[in-house]
Amino acid sequence: MAIQIYGFWRSIASFRVRVALKLKGLAFEEIPIDILTGEQFEPDYAAVNAERVVPTFIHAGHTLFQSLAIIEYLDDIQPEPRLLPREPRERAYARSLALMTVADAHPLLVPRVRNHLAKTFGADAQAIEDWGKHWTNEGLATYERVLAGRAPAPFALGGEPGLADICIAGHVVGAQYVKLGLDAFPTVARLAEQCFALPAFATSHPLEQPGYKAAAAPH
Amino acid sequence: MAIQIYGFWRSIASFRVRVALKLKGLAFEEIPIDILTGEQFEPDYAAVNAERVVPTFIHAGHTLFQSLAIIEYLDDIQPEPRLLPREPRERAYARSLALMTVADAHPLLVPRVRNHLAKTFGADAQAIEDWGKHWTNEGLATYERVLAGRAPAPFALGGEPGLADICIAGHVVGAQYVKLGLDAFPTVARLAEQCFALPAFATSHPLEQPGYKAAAAPH
Repeated sequence: MAIQIYGFWRSIASFRVRVALKLKGLAFEEIPIDILTGEQFEPDYAAVNAERVVPTFIHAGHTLFQSLAIIEYLDDIQPEPRLLPREPRERAYARSLALMTVADAHPLLVPRVRNHLAKTFGADAQAIEDWGKHWTNEGLATYERVLAGRAPAPFALGGEPGLADICIAGHVVGAQYVKLGLDAFPTVARLAEQCFALPAFATSHPLEQPGYKAAAAPH
Repeated sequence: MAIQIYGFWRSIASFRVRVALKLKGLAFEEIPIDILTGEQFEPDYAAVNAERVVPTFIHAGHTLFQSLAIIEYLDDIQPEPRLLPREPRERAYARSLALMTVADAHPLLVPRVRNHLAKTFGADAQAIEDWGKHWTNEGLATYERVLAGRAPAPFALGGEPGLADICIAGHVVGAQYVKLGLDAFPTVARLAEQCFALPAFATSHPLEQPGYKAAAAPH
């Protein structure tokens, strides 16, 4: 099936969808939308995604958005390899781990929030970085506490990587953005190391995307 | 089955779980955790919920958290009445509507964020209310745009209320908190009116909870 995603190299939600597609072995084309310059608010893109966010997932003419909804959809249409376990309590555990960053930490770290802090409270670059460090650190501490109750083996739900690992790995990418080390979070660090040893994760990393490489290249 | 939830009258995530349980016809006991005074950080509760948030859902000795994971779990263990449709694209649409508030708007409005704005930027009560109004308004505008593309009939996915309606109704409760009218969002307003006409929604409203009534009663 032909799959397209509108994404952005730096977007952690785009990272999550990239990893899920690669773990499933599904080929896709990624079309860049620069959320740092506000391309998501342009009329052409707003017609694609009424929420004006990335990623947007397009499959056979049908449009989906929200990274978690997209990943669940991939599991619904192509169950193997599974990204969520079958057993209801295990599914709930996987989803709750995902939501710790998707619904609690990551929403505080996106460009529109950083821009609003600058506009409303006159936050400068340092204050915005401190804000990012604070909430990223809170998320890491939460993961460390929760994973301490059930050690990854080696992934959060067992032997195979899935939804929870994708979201935790994305949170670790966010920690790299704000230059936060993982020394205080050894369980999270080990899990992320396991993830990024896999090509699906490593090649999906924001700093491995063509958009980043083009932006970082000398002009 | 005996179900307990640790919740708080004002918590919109607790509201979502209350509605889901009532739509399923599942009896439950709610144990209050006062997140305004920080009871969620006390050692006793931290042992129940390592994330230190509400709600926590307990069923047959098993603990779950994150409202969306809990609602999906309820659908997994007791499919009727369904809160998510069966068809994959429809499921994805329901989840994406839910995540617009769960993963985008609501995380910006919770007590820990308001407290951090006060501490870090010296935000006063007015500035914090303006912050809440801004993000609540953004969420309402998003819902209005998205629902304009597919009119509720009368609920977001069709004739029966489900996950998407629960989350949109919770966002409307948040609008009431910051005294934001719905005149500019007629589709959202009609959907919320349909929801709160149902006892499962009406009796789950934060201002209908014993904790609110006790706090609001003359001393």
